[in-house]
Amino acid sequence: MIVDCAQYSDGVRQDVGPLDISTAAERSRSGNGFVWLGLHAPDEAELKEVEAAFSLHELAVEDAFRAHQRPKLEDYEGNYFVVLKTARYDDEREAVDFGEINLFLGPGYAIAVRHGEASSLNEARRRLESRPDLISVGPAAAAWAILDKVVDDYEPVAEGIDNDISEVEDQVFSGRGDPTERIYFLKREVIDFHRAVRPLIGPLESLESGKVAAVDEQIRRYFRDVADHARRVDEQLHSQRELLTGVLEANLALISLRQSEVVRAISAWAAIIAVPTFIASVYGMNFEYMPELDERAGYPLILGVMVVAVLLLHRFFKRIDWL
Amino acid sequence: MIVDCAQYSDGVRQDVGPLDISTAAERSRSGNGFVWLGLHAPDEAELKEVEAAFSLHELAVEDAFRAHQRPKLEDYEGNYFVVLKTARYDDEREAVDFGEINLFLGPGYAIAVRHGEASSLNEARRRLESRPDLISVGPAAAAWAILDKVVDDYEPVAEGIDNDISEVEDQVFSGRGDPTERIYFLKREVIDFHRAVRPLIGPLESLESGKVAAVDEQIRRYFRDVADHARRVDEQLHSQRELLTGVLEANLALISLRQSEVVRAISAWAAIIAVPTFIASVYGMNFEYMPELDERAGYPLILGVMVVAVLLLHRFFKRIDWL
Amino acid sequence: MIVDCAQYSDGVRQDVGPLDISTAAERSRSGNGFVWLGLHAPDEAELKEVEAAFSLHELAVEDAFRAHQRPKLEDYEGNYFVVLKTARYDDEREAVDFGEINLFLGPGYAIAVRHGEASSLNEARRRLESRPDLISVGPAAAAWAILDKVVDDYEPVAEGIDNDISEVEDQVFSGRGDPTERIYFLKREVIDFHRAVRPLIGPLESLESGKVAAVDEQIRRYFRDVADHARRVDEQLHSQRELLTGVLEANLALISLRQSEVVRAISAWAAIIAVPTFIASVYGMNFEYMPELDERAGYPLILGVMVVAVLLLHRFFKRIDWL
Amino acid sequence: MIVDCAQYSDGVRQDVGPLDISTAAERSRSGNGFVWLGLHAPDEAELKEVEAAFSLHELAVEDAFRAHQRPKLEDYEGNYFVVLKTARYDDEREAVDFGEINLFLGPGYAIAVRHGEASSLNEARRRLESRPDLISVGPAAAAWAILDKVVDDYEPVAEGIDNDISEVEDQVFSGRGDPTERIYFLKREVIDFHRAVRPLIGPLESLESGKVAAVDEQIRRYFRDVADHARRVDEQLHSQRELLTGVLEANLALISLRQSEVVRAISAWAAIIAVPTFIASVYGMNFEYMPELDERAGYPLILGVMVVAVLLLHRFFKRIDWL
Amino acid sequence: MIVDCAQYSDGVRQDVGPLDISTAAERSRSGNGFVWLGLHAPDEAELKEVEAAFSLHELAVEDAFRAHQRPKLEDYEGNYFVVLKTARYDDEREAVDFGEINLFLGPGYAIAVRHGEASSLNEARRRLESRPDLISVGPAAAAWAILDKVVDDYEPVAEGIDNDISEVEDQVFSGRGDPTERIYFLKREVIDFHRAVRPLIGPLESLESGKVAAVDEQIRRYFRDVADHARRVDEQLHSQRELLTGVLEANLALISLRQSEVVRAISAWAAIIAVPTFIASVYGMNFEYMPELDERAGYPLILGVMVVAVLLLHRFFKRIDWL
Repeated sequence: MIVDCAQYSDGVRQDVGPLDISTAAERSRSGNGFVWLGLHAPDEAELKEVEAAFSLHELAVEDAFRAHQRPKLEDYEGNYFVVLKTARYDDEREAVDFGEINLFLGPGYAIAVRHGEASSLNEARRRLESRPDLISVGPAAAAWAILDKVVDDYEPVAEGIDNDISEVEDQVFSGRGDPTERIYFLKREVIDFHRAVRPLIGPLESLESGKVAAVDEQIRRYFRDVADHARRVDEQLHSQRELLTGVLEANLALISLRQSEVVRAISAWAAIIAVPTFIASVYGMNFEYMPELDERAGYPLILGVMVVAVLLLHRFFKRIDWL
Repeated sequence: MIVDCAQYSDGVRQDVGPLDISTAAERSRSGNGFVWLGLHAPDEAELKEVEAAFSLHELAVEDAFRAHQRPKLEDYEGNYFVVLKTARYDDEREAVDFGEINLFLGPGYAIAVRHGEASSLNEARRRLESRPDLISVGPAAAAWAILDKVVDDYEPVAEGIDNDISEVEDQVFSGRGDPTERIYFLKREVIDFHRAVRPLIGPLESLESGKVAAVDEQIRRYFRDVADHARRVDEQLHSQRELLTGVLEANLALISLRQSEVVRAISAWAAIIAVPTFIASVYGMNFEYMPELDERAGYPLILGVMVVAVLLLHRFFKRIDWL
Repeated sequence: MIVDCAQYSDGVRQDVGPLDISTAAERSRSGNGFVWLGLHAPDEAELKEVEAAFSLHELAVEDAFRAHQRPKLEDYEGNYFVVLKTARYDDEREAVDFGEINLFLGPGYAIAVRHGEASSLNEARRRLESRPDLISVGPAAAAWAILDKVVDDYEPVAEGIDNDISEVEDQVFSGRGDPTERIYFLKREVIDFHRAVRPLIGPLESLESGKVAAVDEQIRRYFRDVADHARRVDEQLHSQRELLTGVLEANLALISLRQSEVVRAISAWAAIIAVPTFIASVYGMNFEYMPELDERAGYPLILGVMVVAVLLLHRFFKRIDWL
Repeated sequence: MIVDCAQYSDGVRQDVGPLDISTAAERSRSGNGFVWLGLHAPDEAELKEVEAAFSLHELAVEDAFRAHQRPKLEDYEGNYFVVLKTARYDDEREAVDFGEINLFLGPGYAIAVRHGEASSLNEARRRLESRPDLISVGPAAAAWAILDKVVDDYEPVAEGIDNDISEVEDQVFSGRGDPTERIYFLKREVIDFHRAVRPLIGPLESLESGKVAAVDEQIRRYFRDVADHARRVDEQLHSQRELLTGVLEANLALISLRQSEVVRAISAWAAIIAVPTFIASVYGMNFEYMPELDERAGYPLILGVMVVAVLLLHRFFKRIDWL
Repeated sequence: MIVDCAQYSDGVRQDVGPLDISTAAERSRSGNGFVWLGLHAPDEAELKEVEAAFSLHELAVEDAFRAHQRPKLEDYEGNYFVVLKTARYDDEREAVDFGEINLFLGPGYAIAVRHGEASSLNEARRRLESRPDLISVGPAAAAWAILDKVVDDYEPVAEGIDNDISEVEDQVFSGRGDPTERIYFLKREVIDFHRAVRPLIGPLESLESGKVAAVDEQIRRYFRDVADHARRVDEQLHSQRELLTGVLEANLALISLRQSEVVRAISAWAAIIAVPTFIASVYGMNFEYMPELDERAGYPLILGVMVVAVLLLHRFFKRIDWL
């Protein structure tokens, strides 16, 4: 599905509604600015049409159709194919929803194929349209706008995970409920998210350092800015993995410790009841000659002894902190 | 055993049935296209014949006969020897079956020696035969077809392991049975599989980057595509190892936690029975003067006290969540 | 807020009070020494004014305004933008307070934008003012003074953490209280602090090795000195992470061990009371013919037997070290 | 002790019995083939004689005498000194016995000084003598023969460890005995063995890549073959370390799990006996009015109730899988 | 404090007693051999004098005075400043005592500033004085003598730690006492020691590879020898860290296992006493009609039954290995 398509030249967008594919391809060859074509979850026919109109390489188009690639930047003789992962945090499910954007860059065109819901590119387009100075740079400006949007959208995901880690820490150290499963699945999300972010840094550094010929000197520091955000997220995710490992270990230590405390409390109570039970069993013996049994005060006295024993034991276990 | 052998030139396969070794060797020297010879688990005599006919290096042939090499790419002065591991997932046994393909590439010939059942190369051959443009590239095209098939076959293995990890997660967090042994052997499979995949990335990157002289510019991006799939599998395996480590730790925490719960429940029941037992032992004492004993209502009253004590204790332990 | 602003030339500070921004910018273009402008938590208007007066790059200014960047050194065509994290240890809360300094360096000016309380730069300025030989080097001297101060301020933080680790070790091995939570949050602080220090080493090494054009040969060894301090802190933090991991593991082992000791002690006491209780229950049996029951000495004898049994058991458990 | 010493030229061994040192040194300077001198655990005098006769460097000779070096390849201006570790697996003791070979290579000579029992070099010599084509390459051929033998001998060691790991896995998952100590010492052996193998890969890659001037193009692929075997062993050891770590973790989980099962079974039996004991204590009470006591059927009835209670409890605990 | 100071030229030491600083500095400029000045824990005045006399760089002198640097090699335009850590093992306290040597090398002088007790340099000086051939190399020979001594002194430290690890292993697997604290502090020592050794390898490799201009070709292989020893110690420390991690894990497993055994033994004894107690409570019931009670043989019979029950239970628990 074509989301939007327009020619950008002389620093402004030239068209209001979306161009169709063949017009766009024609304009891209006019040598006047560039065309930005945005597709969302296109079907095979649409992609074939785009492939033919812009003479894209079959391997790149196949990747764009199948999606589920790893982030990468590939050079097809001056045309570039970029894959990047989009991410959105669903705080309810504590899960990261991933999407994918496939980007074709060539002289006169930038084609963005988006899969999944995250990181709608309308905002990226608006961001570009507000910067006439960058539009004049060519299709790399569109690439910048898209990468900037996608990487900016990583930050709320990392924040969301940070929040959940704080919650999990609370849960672990307050001893409320069992956070083991939550910690595990949070770590799983972090690992998956890291897998989406980390491989992008290489391509971004290629764009930043000018290894990619199509990228103008002027816009390279904008890519550096994006790369820097990606590196920040990468480092944050690295820390989060460490924290989640640490919190799981702390959790294990605390489970052991709490079991230990339970065992102590139980044992204290067992001792408290064992002593009067023993006393009672002594006076249940059937010896002929047991002087206490004949005393009128015997029974209340012994009950008193039991109570005192219980109280002393209770105080003792309180003092050694078992109760 | 010769599986298939044919000459490829002018974009098409020239022969229907398999050529014999000497004819194949002769044709390979004709300067007209190349010969693709496929062998499966050949005996020593066959390999010696091939070695002589194509003047292969003894060390490479020895490796191809012994199999059990690590993935590698070796340069014998313009002839290349590639070792790669094939893999197939046996979901029943949760085990990866490995095989090996040894590939000799030289001017005019591509010889594939396959050991083990995984990754039959018929499909690779068909894939190549449907691409006349690639056939004209020479023997490197056969290498591409084989590598592409082998690496494509890695993906269902990684998927199978992913499924088993999900099952193991269910088992761990639902507390059904003990998944420790299963987790361990799954991790063992992942380690073994990773050992088959990881060393292949180096050779694939050599092919991709043009360090290998025999590889045409045009086909290098096809190798890049294969390398990219291998890198994806490598990253997936990396994550799987982390997940399996994590799930084993979570399992350990949950075992401790469940033991803790059992200890609490047991202790609660012990307390519930200890209290009436104590009461009974008190009225088993043989004191002369125990007024309760002489009351007609004494016995039913005490039974009632016992029942009430049990009910109160039960409610108490329910409330503190020990039962 | 402008903290201080002065021109430095001919080895001395030229102005007493702070210059205003436009004067400072004018002087910076005079080719005579350089201007050091220090701002603390400036508002947007102030930064815009500085941006305009010194023709700074918008991306750098945006970073300086938003703060929360990772440490980095960026080259804007001969002008440099440096981000570094300041740190201060709050021993009370066992937490590191982070701040940030953004540094713009160009021909004739050094602008420091500080956020947060840590590492006030007055001292850095005084340090520079006492070194006329370095002032003549130009704005890089101001960069050195600031970096030197910031990295020097890392050392008390690392020391503070070292002290807390020693305290935690004491706590773990003496068995007083439960240090799990403290260890975890200490590790968290170390991870965060490491994230502030480690990325700074790259930029410092660029300054040290002369990759940054604006840095004079003479001052490079001063940057090497700073880089060396940063590397020391980095290695110290690395060790601290390992120690905290180790102390958590030791803690877990000791929790298990102490639980084990508690279980033994409890069991010993249970045995000590179970034996006389059993004896009493034997003499509570109602057999017609139990000769001991009729003996006058029976009761005291049995009480004696109970005492002896208790003493023997107690001694036994002492000897096998369960009590 | 001189084990063997002969001159090799024109593709064949020239001498039957061992040459003495001075003759060997003279022949080595004849420019006709090379001399291979093999020593086993030589005393200082012998080494001094060899040092003088072949003008070896004192530092290398000192290393060869002291043994206990790490594997390395050192260049003494066109003469080379190689240290490598030999290994032999003693399956009885589950221990690796290490030895050391010090190799001096120079124009016209190869001197092997062997310490320890493993990897006798007679076989290496025979291997070389069967390859006239390699003999003509010069002393590097002797180096190849020795390295090939030593690295080949690593494989049974790694196999032996693999077998022991399988045994340990059986032991862990069947729950027979406690394999903790065995796992630990196995891991220790793997770490030691890895320390012998890993540093050898660098020198082998130097030989393979032609960084060592004395090594002929023709023989470099034989070194590549040896390097490849060493890399395989290295990767295998890497996996073994991971497996042993994993098996220790699994072992810990299973110890916890089995303790948990024991606690459940014990608790079930405690409950089974506590209930009839409680019933008996009730009828041991001395109330005047307890109608059951006067019934003739009371006693057998109560015994029956006890039996039924025991049977029901037993069935219940069977069903919840505690017994 | 000046420990010793002498001029070395023409292969021999020229002076008997220590020269004073100004004479030494003068001689160092004579172009005749070099001066080796050794200081131990100098005060600020002494260092200032040396700084002035030899025109040392202020930053290096400041480092040498403050000590507590990390090992490094710094180039001050043809003068070199080396920091290295000395170590000595105090087996009593199982602690490594660290010292520091700061070395200034320049044309005509080598100045060693030593802090701490470890690695007295008298021996290094004697080692150099016995090698006229090396003396003629210049000040680098003094550097070699010092580095060789310091690194040689690392080996007994590593040995001492190895011994303590063996002792700890014995303790863990024999179950005597609790080695947790000892393991932890041993690991702490290894981490600290590693931090002293590892950063030295880089500088040593610079000396070995000739990156340092002042180092003569002839002496570089002596530095290679030192570097090699340092690498050996580094690898040994790496293994020791792994072993200590492993031994702590094994310790944890064994604590769990032993707790498990204790729980079983306790439970067995509890069962052994619970059964006769139950029997006694049955015959403590007050039923009118309990025929056994009236039998004369009843009491001894029941005592016999109790004994038999105890014996059978004991045998049973022996057989299932709980006792």
